[in-house]
Amino acid sequence: MFSLPRLSRSATPTPTPRERARQIERVLEGSRRLLSERGEANSVAIASEVLAELAKLHPEGWVEFCGVLDADFAPDPGRVLHAAERYAAEPSASHLIALTAAAEPPRQELLRRLSRAPGGTALIVALRRVLLDALRSRPELAAVEADFLHLLGSWFNAGFLQMEQVDWRSSAALLEKIIHHEAVHAIDGWADLRRRLQPDRRCFAFFHPQLPGEPLIFVEVALVPEMPAAIAPLIDKQAAPRGEREFKVAAFYSISNCQPGLRGVSLGNFLIKRVAEHLQREFPQLRTFCTLSPIPGFADWLLRRSQQQVERDGLPPRVAERAHAARALLAGRHGADLAALVSGIAPEAADAELRDALLTLAGFYLAHESVLPGGDPVAKFHLGNGARLERLNWAGDLSRKGLKQSLGIMVNYLYALEEVEDNHDRFVHGEVVSARRIARLL
Amino acid sequence: MFSLPRLSRSATPTPTPRERARQIERVLEGSRRLLSERGEANSVAIASEVLAELAKLHPEGWVEFCGVLDADFAPDPGRVLHAAERYAAEPSASHLIALTAAAEPPRQELLRRLSRAPGGTALIVALRRVLLDALRSRPELAAVEADFLHLLGSWFNAGFLQMEQVDWRSSAALLEKIIHHEAVHAIDGWADLRRRLQPDRRCFAFFHPQLPGEPLIFVEVALVPEMPAAIAPLIDKQAAPRGEREFKVAAFYSISNCQPGLRGVSLGNFLIKRVAEHLQREFPQLRTFCTLSPIPGFADWLLRRSQQQVERDGLPPRVAERAHAARALLAGRHGADLAALVSGIAPEAADAELRDALLTLAGFYLAHESVLPGGDPVAKFHLGNGARLERLNWAGDLSRKGLKQSLGIMVNYLYALEEVEDNHDRFVHGEVVSARRIARLL
Amino acid sequence: MFSLPRLSRSATPTPTPRERARQIERVLEGSRRLLSERGEANSVAIASEVLAELAKLHPEGWVEFCGVLDADFAPDPGRVLHAAERYAAEPSASHLIALTAAAEPPRQELLRRLSRAPGGTALIVALRRVLLDALRSRPELAAVEADFLHLLGSWFNAGFLQMEQVDWRSSAALLEKIIHHEAVHAIDGWADLRRRLQPDRRCFAFFHPQLPGEPLIFVEVALVPEMPAAIAPLIDKQAAPRGEREFKVAAFYSISNCQPGLRGVSLGNFLIKRVAEHLQREFPQLRTFCTLSPIPGFADWLLRRSQQQVERDGLPPRVAERAHAARALLAGRHGADLAALVSGIAPEAADAELRDALLTLAGFYLAHESVLPGGDPVAKFHLGNGARLERLNWAGDLSRKGLKQSLGIMVNYLYALEEVEDNHDRFVHGEVVSARRIARLL
Amino acid sequence: MFSLPRLSRSATPTPTPRERARQIERVLEGSRRLLSERGEANSVAIASEVLAELAKLHPEGWVEFCGVLDADFAPDPGRVLHAAERYAAEPSASHLIALTAAAEPPRQELLRRLSRAPGGTALIVALRRVLLDALRSRPELAAVEADFLHLLGSWFNAGFLQMEQVDWRSSAALLEKIIHHEAVHAIDGWADLRRRLQPDRRCFAFFHPQLPGEPLIFVEVALVPEMPAAIAPLIDKQAAPRGEREFKVAAFYSISNCQPGLRGVSLGNFLIKRVAEHLQREFPQLRTFCTLSPIPGFADWLLRRSQQQVERDGLPPRVAERAHAARALLAGRHGADLAALVSGIAPEAADAELRDALLTLAGFYLAHESVLPGGDPVAKFHLGNGARLERLNWAGDLSRKGLKQSLGIMVNYLYALEEVEDNHDRFVHGEVVSARRIARLL
Repeated sequence: MFSLPRLSRSATPTPTPRERARQIERVLEGSRRLLSERGEANSVAIASEVLAELAKLHPEGWVEFCGVLDADFAPDPGRVLHAAERYAAEPSASHLIALTAAAEPPRQELLRRLSRAPGGTALIVALRRVLLDALRSRPELAAVEADFLHLLGSWFNAGFLQMEQVDWRSSAALLEKIIHHEAVHAIDGWADLRRRLQPDRRCFAFFHPQLPGEPLIFVEVALVPEMPAAIAPLIDKQAAPRGEREFKVAAFYSISNCQPGLRGVSLGNFLIKRVAEHLQREFPQLRTFCTLSPIPGFADWLLRRSQQQVERDGLPPRVAERAHAARALLAGRHGADLAALVSGIAPEAADAELRDALLTLAGFYLAHESVLPGGDPVAKFHLGNGARLERLNWAGDLSRKGLKQSLGIMVNYLYALEEVEDNHDRFVHGEVVSARRIARLL
Repeated sequence: MFSLPRLSRSATPTPTPRERARQIERVLEGSRRLLSERGEANSVAIASEVLAELAKLHPEGWVEFCGVLDADFAPDPGRVLHAAERYAAEPSASHLIALTAAAEPPRQELLRRLSRAPGGTALIVALRRVLLDALRSRPELAAVEADFLHLLGSWFNAGFLQMEQVDWRSSAALLEKIIHHEAVHAIDGWADLRRRLQPDRRCFAFFHPQLPGEPLIFVEVALVPEMPAAIAPLIDKQAAPRGEREFKVAAFYSISNCQPGLRGVSLGNFLIKRVAEHLQREFPQLRTFCTLSPIPGFADWLLRRSQQQVERDGLPPRVAERAHAARALLAGRHGADLAALVSGIAPEAADAELRDALLTLAGFYLAHESVLPGGDPVAKFHLGNGARLERLNWAGDLSRKGLKQSLGIMVNYLYALEEVEDNHDRFVHGEVVSARRIARLL
Repeated sequence: MFSLPRLSRSATPTPTPRERARQIERVLEGSRRLLSERGEANSVAIASEVLAELAKLHPEGWVEFCGVLDADFAPDPGRVLHAAERYAAEPSASHLIALTAAAEPPRQELLRRLSRAPGGTALIVALRRVLLDALRSRPELAAVEADFLHLLGSWFNAGFLQMEQVDWRSSAALLEKIIHHEAVHAIDGWADLRRRLQPDRRCFAFFHPQLPGEPLIFVEVALVPEMPAAIAPLIDKQAAPRGEREFKVAAFYSISNCQPGLRGVSLGNFLIKRVAEHLQREFPQLRTFCTLSPIPGFADWLLRRSQQQVERDGLPPRVAERAHAARALLAGRHGADLAALVSGIAPEAADAELRDALLTLAGFYLAHESVLPGGDPVAKFHLGNGARLERLNWAGDLSRKGLKQSLGIMVNYLYALEEVEDNHDRFVHGEVVSARRIARLL
Repeated sequence: MFSLPRLSRSATPTPTPRERARQIERVLEGSRRLLSERGEANSVAIASEVLAELAKLHPEGWVEFCGVLDADFAPDPGRVLHAAERYAAEPSASHLIALTAAAEPPRQELLRRLSRAPGGTALIVALRRVLLDALRSRPELAAVEADFLHLLGSWFNAGFLQMEQVDWRSSAALLEKIIHHEAVHAIDGWADLRRRLQPDRRCFAFFHPQLPGEPLIFVEVALVPEMPAAIAPLIDKQAAPRGEREFKVAAFYSISNCQPGLRGVSLGNFLIKRVAEHLQREFPQLRTFCTLSPIPGFADWLLRRSQQQVERDGLPPRVAERAHAARALLAGRHGADLAALVSGIAPEAADAELRDALLTLAGFYLAHESVLPGGDPVAKFHLGNGARLERLNWAGDLSRKGLKQSLGIMVNYLYALEEVEDNHDRFVHGEVVSARRIARLL
């Protein structure tokens, strides 16, 4: 996580409950002062004091602080109701202004004032990270969380984000963070990273003026002659870099968020499109912008799914039959459970029937399940961005993780600029747009 | 005004009403698309289109567009009322989230999405400038204006502003803007500016990442041995720069806003305090941070005020008497109306009685009227920032403008860090904190 | 002149002869120490001390110092002769190394060591400026001057110079120096400069890492549709900038040296070619690179030249006749000397005969006299760079200075990349390459 | 080695002798053209062509090229002798100028002109690297080499070098070069480097404008409470960084040259002093600037030295005896030759007599042999810089290399600013200044 300017938390011993209570009280007192008219003239100074106190509280104390935000800094129900009634009776400008003022939770203004001091925004992002983790055990904090998201969404707006290329000229401090945050295909040290920053591999990150030096999200791209079907060649440390003349396809092969405290703030969609625009300008010969993506939820889904479900849930007979065949084959061959079996699969030699069955099921999973809650998150992301389900690739990822999650299958999503808006619209209404070959498969 | 990236408005002929209607329709259609789920995946591209259309409309069309924002993008009264009733019945997190969503005018989200595209924030600032001008004739747009202010206040938050020193190494493009925007003591060309950027004069400006190269506000400071009593020596082009050892007082002698579209967004208060902090670090020997300010409303106020008013409004007898004496003197001497007289005043020779009367009246005006609506704006600004009314200076500004506005009187406001919060609080409650000598005067 | 880091000369009163002698002694003592083996380990510190002492001496003392360099830091004649004899007897590597060491004046190493300290190079440039001025009265310092030139030529080598575009985004400090140093067509304040930095006017300067912020030389270029015939339109403050599509010709209309201490170091030739290369890359449509230049020596030459000389010096009869005609006409019309007459000339109305005579004489002057010592310096510069004498323009410069120096005539020199080397070679051998129309003229 | 801009050498197949001859011919023809008057106007273009041809020749061709520089671009013996005779007869300015011109080898001007083109200086540095390697088999090229050194020494003058701190914010491209070039205590990957760039370890490098991104030399410094006696704690990857308050001593523990082509150009002396100055400013509490250095020549010297030599060469009897005792002990214990024995030494347990003998011999070696040709290069460097021989440390470096080269002994050299000049002077005259404890030891 990023450092909080001027705030040190390192050596503080765990406070006693009594100390904790006093600390919370100090934060609260400062917050009230900051929000009062009295605090207006001096708000940066007061905000700095509150931030310093908050920094000492981390992390249990932060959850308590959020509890106070919920209890003491929410809109007054009676005042809102009154304002809503007046606005309903006569929707005038002054009634609307009064309503808006009454309905906005005062904690929003509190957070805005905290963000005025150096390190304020960074601390708010850090706070939200803790809050998100706490939500499971304290669901009543959902409205507080919604306020954090609302403000961060406004501040980390696409227009405020700065895209920068990450390459071998970047600082070691930044590159170290890239290695640390890569979440899809782990970077195995500096030599691995170095290959991923050669001229035929690109890496772009979003930064925000309030978090200097901190990447928010980054994407890795391979510039290749054809839409790639397997990940290994793209991340092969030994591969010789290709020349510019061979760049026909830009394949996004990894995208990683770096700030858990910004979960839910739309960043990836904007980054992919800004990178595509940038690369198109740099290399006008680029014809195709696609991904090479994992299907992290596929194996789990297949294992959880009984034969009855497969049939009952309206799967076409041909697919249902193949699901059965796939399982029979898998079970028959090894007499073990599917997960173990998959780990031992030798994909090149896989007999055609098993292979076809699994590809069809993967296609079904992506085309039908990704619109449902709990569907594959990577599919949801790219299809939600307006990409098209373009191609399934057998034996695309033979790493342990790839076999375990997707039985080694990978997928290309295609970003066709002129289709994006329409595809997204159809996806929102429950339809996944696929290439013809996938439609035929199902 | 700043330039709008990618948008050109120069050569467009005035459109016919029919064309205008079609243009508005296009903006509206784009806005709806941008705000719809459909637009989500492609929002930067759609926002760019809407911005391009909006740029063609300027300026009458912008007011019409604001009218549409008022009519079509306001919260639904029935839905808000329903949400407020549920929240009042049971103030749960989900009810609050629903309420907040229902109460926020949809145009806020529209503006947030517009700001995602390059030039979006700049256009929103430009739009608000036109909107502010239009409010007089179209007061019903007040709620739309409140939404603009709300968003700009969040984005042009003190934490997001970058303070930079402006000096002779700054680009000519920036310095030209400083000359243009200086609103208090006009800068008479490059030689004048050059003197104001010597080591014993400082200039600092706020910038925002979304308006690169555009100063938002700037302040000019003189580093001097004593609290200054007159403006002429501070802006004398020929004055030899003083050495660092003589810097005891930092006197803010001019502060100018550059962006009318950001009126009402708190910038000056933060700038003054950040500059004071910066200078204190650079020159630890600085003891005093004060202003040398005009009193732009004084002469007007005195002219408008009848003797009856002076007495009736509770002025102490001594002051009322002197107001009378002052007028009598003034009237007797020239037999002309006050305004003409003042223009001809020879301040050094002013006889003591007139001088004392006018200083007392100025003190009264600042100490009592500045807390009222319509009071002196400069006094309101500094006192509201928590400064103290420190000293009145006879013959402080003998320029035509200085004589006309303040009868040549200037005032020092004192920023004492440890008092700022308390002074502000007392000002909010109707009390002006003054130095003892001013209290005695009254 | 540029500032000398850490050295202040401002308030030092003129020293007495005795003080001066002591100062010189200190500089000398430091110089010997710096040059000794003893000084090697500590040379930056010692060099800094010597520089500080030198800075106090300026300027008469600098000339004395140069006198000491001449007397005490020259090669030892006996030692050189001995080394030369041995080398002549056997031209081995060791004999050559010994010879080179013996023949190099020790002051060269002294200056190299002085340049190791901060501000050293700047002071050496400043010293040479004074030395150049002193040469007239102290011609015996020519060898010292040659050493300065040798070292500065090596350090201010084209490969070490950084070319930067000067535009409205440049710092005011730099632009002020541009205004100050413009030597051909004076810049009349900031508004004039601003026009010369619009997109269809360019300015480029050379900088050196050792003189940060100090332009060494700069050139101004107009991007225009045709080879220009007159200066006024190029420097017209009111002229509307042209669009890129009209850029066909890059016309260098002014080139100014900023550092008198670098006289004789080749800068202009490199700058023009680097700028041409740069512009050709930026605007591939550019077809022609030429100048629009004054002929500063023409009027003087014509006045000094008697009719006998014109005839005797081998001028073709046609030209000689016209010289006569020109003078007769001029004399007849005004009965005054030529200089006065020229100041009053009304070029548009000039009758064709006079005009033709003067153009022919200017062509002759440029084509024949510029190869001689004392010929027109601007012609020498461009022709020596390998440019071609392309076109003469009547009434090209109607300013006072233009009329006085060149009778208003201007000239275009053409830089044709493929000809440059050959043209230069012919110029060195006494031939000026001209366009056919000029050859015909003569 | 650094890259040569615009020049690629990668895929060129080995040329036939005939091709090689033609290539050399082209380089030579270009060089003559570049040096001729004809080339003057176009020298950057011609220099670029010659550089491109030269780049194809590398490396055997480069040696041939140097042979041509020796044969064809040397001063003319007859002309020099004539000039020397005239100067000896009358040492006037014009005679001196003529002499200097005649004595300077024309290849110096050729190299200066080559350096005008982009990449010229880089190629000259690369050429010299090859030339230095070739000198052993072609000693007649020494005079050519001297010319290279002369020019590079002038260009890579301390005043032209830029010192920059290298830290974790530096680019990965630079850090990779630091890892590669570290020559004293090898850097074992990025984690090792990271520790050496923490706040209590510093790294500074010199750069030159003509070799952007290329470190010329760098030094590593430890900020510690006491003069260090062993290297292991300084380069321990796990060591916790110390706080600023503990910084009392700056210990230079490694200095590495990166450019073999700059051998003999004084860089290290200047770097150490500039770093010391910089650190003293940053941490005024620093009291001591010293090194912790290996003695790379000690073991070799001891092995090569017979007992007779030890006695004959005037070693004090006490030392001679100990040398004998040391050998006897060493021989007796292991019955093997010294080198093998030393590799197995267990320094902590070494009995006192052996230890004392070896320390005394090391002290003798440093104090007496380092002034002789072939003496310890590290001692020569620091003592020549004016440092003092301060302390010998038993078991200072237990690495394989440390045991093999110095029998594990390390030495501190002390840089005391006020002594540097005097120490250097005494060193030049054959005396090594030592701390009293070392003097006593001998």
